[in-house]
Amino acid sequence: MNARRILLTLSYDGTEYAGWQYQENALSVQEKVEEILSAIEKTPMRIVGASRTDAGVHAQGQRAHFDTFSRIPTDKYPFALNALLPSDIRVNKAAQVADTLHARFSARRKEYRYLIDNRRHANALTQRFAAHVPLHLDAEKMHQSAQNLVGAHDFAAFEASGGTAKTTVRTIESVSVKRENNLVELRITGNAFLYNMVRIIAGTLIQIGQEKLPPDAFSQAIAHKDRLLLGPTAPAKGLTLYSIDYEEGDNAYPTHSKRP
Amino acid sequence: MNARRILLTLSYDGTEYAGWQYQENALSVQEKVEEILSAIEKTPMRIVGASRTDAGVHAQGQRAHFDTFSRIPTDKYPFALNALLPSDIRVNKAAQVADTLHARFSARRKEYRYLIDNRRHANALTQRFAAHVPLHLDAEKMHQSAQNLVGAHDFAAFEASGGTAKTTVRTIESVSVKRENNLVELRITGNAFLYNMVRIIAGTLIQIGQEKLPPDAFSQAIAHKDRLLLGPTAPAKGLTLYSIDYEEGDNAYPTHSKRP
Repeated sequence: MNARRILLTLSYDGTEYAGWQYQENALSVQEKVEEILSAIEKTPMRIVGASRTDAGVHAQGQRAHFDTFSRIPTDKYPFALNALLPSDIRVNKAAQVADTLHARFSARRKEYRYLIDNRRHANALTQRFAAHVPLHLDAEKMHQSAQNLVGAHDFAAFEASGGTAKTTVRTIESVSVKRENNLVELRITGNAFLYNMVRIIAGTLIQIGQEKLPPDAFSQAIAHKDRLLLGPTAPAKGLTLYSIDYEEGDNAYPTHSKRP
Repeated sequence: MNARRILLTLSYDGTEYAGWQYQENALSVQEKVEEILSAIEKTPMRIVGASRTDAGVHAQGQRAHFDTFSRIPTDKYPFALNALLPSDIRVNKAAQVADTLHARFSARRKEYRYLIDNRRHANALTQRFAAHVPLHLDAEKMHQSAQNLVGAHDFAAFEASGGTAKTTVRTIESVSVKRENNLVELRITGNAFLYNMVRIIAGTLIQIGQEKLPPDAFSQAIAHKDRLLLGPTAPAKGLTLYSIDYEEGDNAYPTHSKRP
């Protein structure tokens, strides 16, 4: 019997977790999912996540794959896992995929969103998912400045220390900043992102929106490869990994292996 | 020196609290706010809330008043309180009001919102603030049925046991049910609500949206004053006390006492 490769789509509230990736002495989302999956499969299981979200970062559409020899029907995994997982981690989808599909290396496109609560005193209902910035932000100026990120650039200046990427060239497909009442939201889509890149972009935009950094800060930092031309890394809790795509043009992927 | 009456606007994530009102052996929002306010005022303080939200119910715009002889400037209260309150309770506004204004008895209008996560498997990011209903809901049918609530009616059938209201006549000003992707939201505004009334309305709408109850369930229950013609009380966590108004037409109230 061949193994099936199953790709999960997960959402989680990252507040209580030390990030996605397994680590000593702290509870990660990966560890929690592996624990429950192992209980269901009655054998130790490992899963491979698409994105190593940091401590406190949330996910609406994280992906992770695993291989199984079990006879559990694919569409039963969300029910079985959700019945045992804590409510701040939910499995929203399970699909059988080609065993050549790798959750991390096959990803073509990722979207992140960064939420800012831009009122004088924070709203208790958004405090888990938004960074609080009490000073008024000019969202239109932020949006215009962010357009300088679009395209293929060497984003060396946009990487936190500890990044291990071989190349720092990334392609940003689209970026927008929009205000809706007191909430300002950054949406950014690209082929891949460097370590802390979105939080550095968000932190820079917050400064641009208060005119503490010039509107061409991104262009300057790209040209000079200088981290010091950018703003601080924005808090983890405002960041949500929104979606990951594996096929060009939409969010589809094979639901059944083409192999026998 | 005369006492000042101060009206607070508060938001809170009710997940960790036993409701608004003070009670033995469980932490309430009121108790927590009184504890911090007492520390700031250096004297035991009591606050009077507008709405006694149940355990697990949230608030975006709860109101509460208190009287103080202190010299703390009114607009400093949110900063002072938020510095010591847990992050799931935020004071969003403080205003001096006439000492005839009573947070509860002077309220003219309240808006509640009830959020439903209507996807097959719940989203971890909305699970604190939305009830999960996996079966598809017909939001348009829910909206149409809900229009039967509008107006002044005897809502005796819509009260949970334990209600203590002298009259069960209430006036619903407006109600709507709208779908946005997988989220279905009920918004309801009225002069006042009976105990658990909004959760009973939400629970009934969920059944109407699945055709488990007829579209005229509300009219029938009003006519026959029969709780059994309505659906179950929907879970507390989907409910948010959205706003409370004190003046006709807008959300204004006097910011300074007219008295000397």
